[in-house]
Amino acid sequence: MNDLGTDIPATAYRRLVSRFERLAIIDEASAMLGWDQAAVMPEGGAAARGDQLATLAGVAHGMLAAPEVEEDLAAAEIAPPADPVERRNLALMRRAYRRATAVPADLVEAVARESAACETVWRGARRDADFAAVRPRLEVLLGLIREQAAALGATLGLSPYDALIDSYQPGITAAEIDPVFDRYEAFLRDHLATVEARQAGRMAGLPGTPPFAEAAQEALCRRLAERVGLDFRGARLDRSLHPFCGGTPTDIRITTRYDEADFASALMGVLHESGHGLYEAGLPRARARQPVGAAAGMAVHESQSLIVELQAARSDPFLRWLGPQLAAAFGQPPADFAPDRLAARLRRVERSFIRVEADEVTYPAHVILRFRLEAAMVAGDLAVADLPAAWNDGMRALLGIVPPDDARGCLQDIHWYAGLFGYFPSYTLGAMAAAQLMQAARRARPDIDAALAEGDFAPLRDWLRANVHGHGARYGFNELLVEATGKPLDPASFEAHLRARYLA
Amino acid sequence: MNDLGTDIPATAYRRLVSRFERLAIIDEASAMLGWDQAAVMPEGGAAARGDQLATLAGVAHGMLAAPEVEEDLAAAEIAPPADPVERRNLALMRRAYRRATAVPADLVEAVARESAACETVWRGARRDADFAAVRPRLEVLLGLIREQAAALGATLGLSPYDALIDSYQPGITAAEIDPVFDRYEAFLRDHLATVEARQAGRMAGLPGTPPFAEAAQEALCRRLAERVGLDFRGARLDRSLHPFCGGTPTDIRITTRYDEADFASALMGVLHESGHGLYEAGLPRARARQPVGAAAGMAVHESQSLIVELQAARSDPFLRWLGPQLAAAFGQPPADFAPDRLAARLRRVERSFIRVEADEVTYPAHVILRFRLEAAMVAGDLAVADLPAAWNDGMRALLGIVPPDDARGCLQDIHWYAGLFGYFPSYTLGAMAAAQLMQAARRARPDIDAALAEGDFAPLRDWLRANVHGHGARYGFNELLVEATGKPLDPASFEAHLRARYLA
Repeated sequence: MNDLGTDIPATAYRRLVSRFERLAIIDEASAMLGWDQAAVMPEGGAAARGDQLATLAGVAHGMLAAPEVEEDLAAAEIAPPADPVERRNLALMRRAYRRATAVPADLVEAVARESAACETVWRGARRDADFAAVRPRLEVLLGLIREQAAALGATLGLSPYDALIDSYQPGITAAEIDPVFDRYEAFLRDHLATVEARQAGRMAGLPGTPPFAEAAQEALCRRLAERVGLDFRGARLDRSLHPFCGGTPTDIRITTRYDEADFASALMGVLHESGHGLYEAGLPRARARQPVGAAAGMAVHESQSLIVELQAARSDPFLRWLGPQLAAAFGQPPADFAPDRLAARLRRVERSFIRVEADEVTYPAHVILRFRLEAAMVAGDLAVADLPAAWNDGMRALLGIVPPDDARGCLQDIHWYAGLFGYFPSYTLGAMAAAQLMQAARRARPDIDAALAEGDFAPLRDWLRANVHGHGARYGFNELLVEATGKPLDPASFEAHLRARYLA
Repeated sequence: MNDLGTDIPATAYRRLVSRFERLAIIDEASAMLGWDQAAVMPEGGAAARGDQLATLAGVAHGMLAAPEVEEDLAAAEIAPPADPVERRNLALMRRAYRRATAVPADLVEAVARESAACETVWRGARRDADFAAVRPRLEVLLGLIREQAAALGATLGLSPYDALIDSYQPGITAAEIDPVFDRYEAFLRDHLATVEARQAGRMAGLPGTPPFAEAAQEALCRRLAERVGLDFRGARLDRSLHPFCGGTPTDIRITTRYDEADFASALMGVLHESGHGLYEAGLPRARARQPVGAAAGMAVHESQSLIVELQAARSDPFLRWLGPQLAAAFGQPPADFAPDRLAARLRRVERSFIRVEADEVTYPAHVILRFRLEAAMVAGDLAVADLPAAWNDGMRALLGIVPPDDARGCLQDIHWYAGLFGYFPSYTLGAMAAAQLMQAARRARPDIDAALAEGDFAPLRDWLRANVHGHGARYGFNELLVEATGKPLDPASFEAHLRARYLA
């Protein structure tokens, strides 16, 4: 099923290759069940599905944390494979084993149980804008997360918070993120008001006239996904409450939701998820089901969705092509979808309380806030009781606005209440990496924009396949950027992108 | 997740309950992946899906055949649970363990590999009506099946063929089936011509006028499934090439296919699969995920689909209710769906070559033929080379017709070519059991037919829940019939049903 290890004499390494292949297959089964749960499962199946996913996770963990793995790793490390990609694969196996065995089983279970309990309480607390209702549960959960982070960090030689970041995006630390985010804060302080002022001076009518028929949106979404490069012989487009990309590299499952009052959300959702799907489909087949053949992390994944959605699909050339497509799809006059109108909808910048609704200029402020708060919580420097006030102070400092209640403040995102600490930075690291990759791609392939003006993603796609997708997890976050762009993360690319789009 | 074993002191038995629960959960995961494969998976996912299902099967087999299972079984059998249902559960665990360990792993793998290979060749052979093309592969496969049957039989104390029958329907043997099938052969010889003659004398026009819009068919199918008793909060209706019922008891997945030229195939398909689904949904929740809480076998399962499809849904009272529903669904005159017209379509009796298209009168002849041929093949009394001639002789003897080629003869069904020997009798045992159960149900609930005349399955459903579904696998085939109807399989009920419907 892949050609790793086939000519390696070291039996221990071959045994590991075979074990990790089985592990990956079980993870594929879980991924498909996860898609089913979100896209088609009737409510009656929920309890059984939870058991199925938990049992498969338990089987996979047992397979990964088995004593023979330590023996085989030790044996393989004495005589490592000659091929550098296989050496990296072996190192990633070691990392996976370390992570799986770093935290005692009872703590893993306690985190899973408390995460589920806290998330349930959070749903009610968010609805009622009642932080006090969930505070005790979040305190318990944070305590467990800090224990877990300390255990992971001790094993991996990282600080507790860095160990959590590493769970989602290997190859970058808080110390590297800090100055990048500080710099963006300064950029915002210097330019946000100007962006807003320019936008006010260029007011255009909104594109098109609702309703935008669901069937027309769906047909257009499929076409756009195909344009990006999804091949529906190995992919599906369905509906779910929250858009996502699931499935496996040969069976990509993207979802979106449709709003007849506004075509943009389904459209941009599908473009975003298509970027994720394209990455999965482009992972190196010869390394399939091995750690080195998987995606390089959540920030890299996000860079691939955002390079499609934000960099390419909201660019001037693409909007020029997109307008007539929208007009034809909805049977409305092409002039109603002129580039300035599309830009008025798709590039509107607005200080707002809700991260998931934020534009690309203010979005990083939401992430910077969460990054700082979660780092402080994990370090023990911020008590859960002080979170709402710290949140509001942070919003005031970063965007100059204060949410009217905690539902639009520290209760809005599921992450912390579901036990996900260390995930947030990936969103903005991904956005910045996308700008840096796009800059490098345009240098290497000057035909990218002309192609986008024809609705053609091929030049960009080819470059991404060769320089990002095809590497799998061979490189960590900054290493991959060095390989693809010649330097580690450099926030200047993202700033240059925003200057060109919003301040030119 | 179930209440088995919670107050049993025997630790060994409790460990087994917990292990079989995990096994059942893994089987649930496989069942959902199987549904996905047949109903929604894009072709690109096929290879990976095969790996996923094979890996989960391997995990489950490893869990079932582990040495600790033998130890726990032995310990639990020394001090068996006091409750008779739990004792039956323990016996079924022993049976599952015996079956899992009876056949050497290399033979299991060889059967799986040869089944896949033979099935692939069969597809081409059937298309080309070329038995010679698949003969060598079937010879190899039959050789392996005979080895497997011998090993299973030796372990279970059954003849090789009985051991295969027992794989699909425990609790009945070829020696018990033989006289039942012989008797039906005589019944056919005595009555088939009369049935055909009466039918010719009652010729009615076909119901309705095509096309029958797919959307209208689908909406009606959903309503009918709900009438049968499927609750779509825990079920779905989708499309697939061949109708089936998959999923799990709290997440039933039925499928059908639509033909705008003929509403009957989707409709009857959904009614049939709803019967299967109702059985799964009605299995005892308190025994969920234990061997004793599962379905009692394929023949019992088929009895539940056929009691809905053939006994209830093609009965006079139900057809009287169904006609106006069809007329309303398709916007056609009610008179066009009068009972005699519906009967002309839904109860047409016709000697034909193809089993899956056969009516309820001639269907058993197709099964009797296959039962006799496969018994002879497994016993070594019929060589694969002689199968086409034996098939044609059998068809001539049973139905007086001879297929013009092997595609409409011994190549028509996938079963043998996919390694399924011993499955066929279940179809007719199920049809006969359905008649016997319906007779007992009508005795116990004289309101069944009046309710069906209102499209109401409740009285029949309640009786089935109490007398069939709720027992799970507590009883074998004949034991269950004794429990529910007072006697083991008695072909007289099925004959009485046919006399009443076709000869009255």
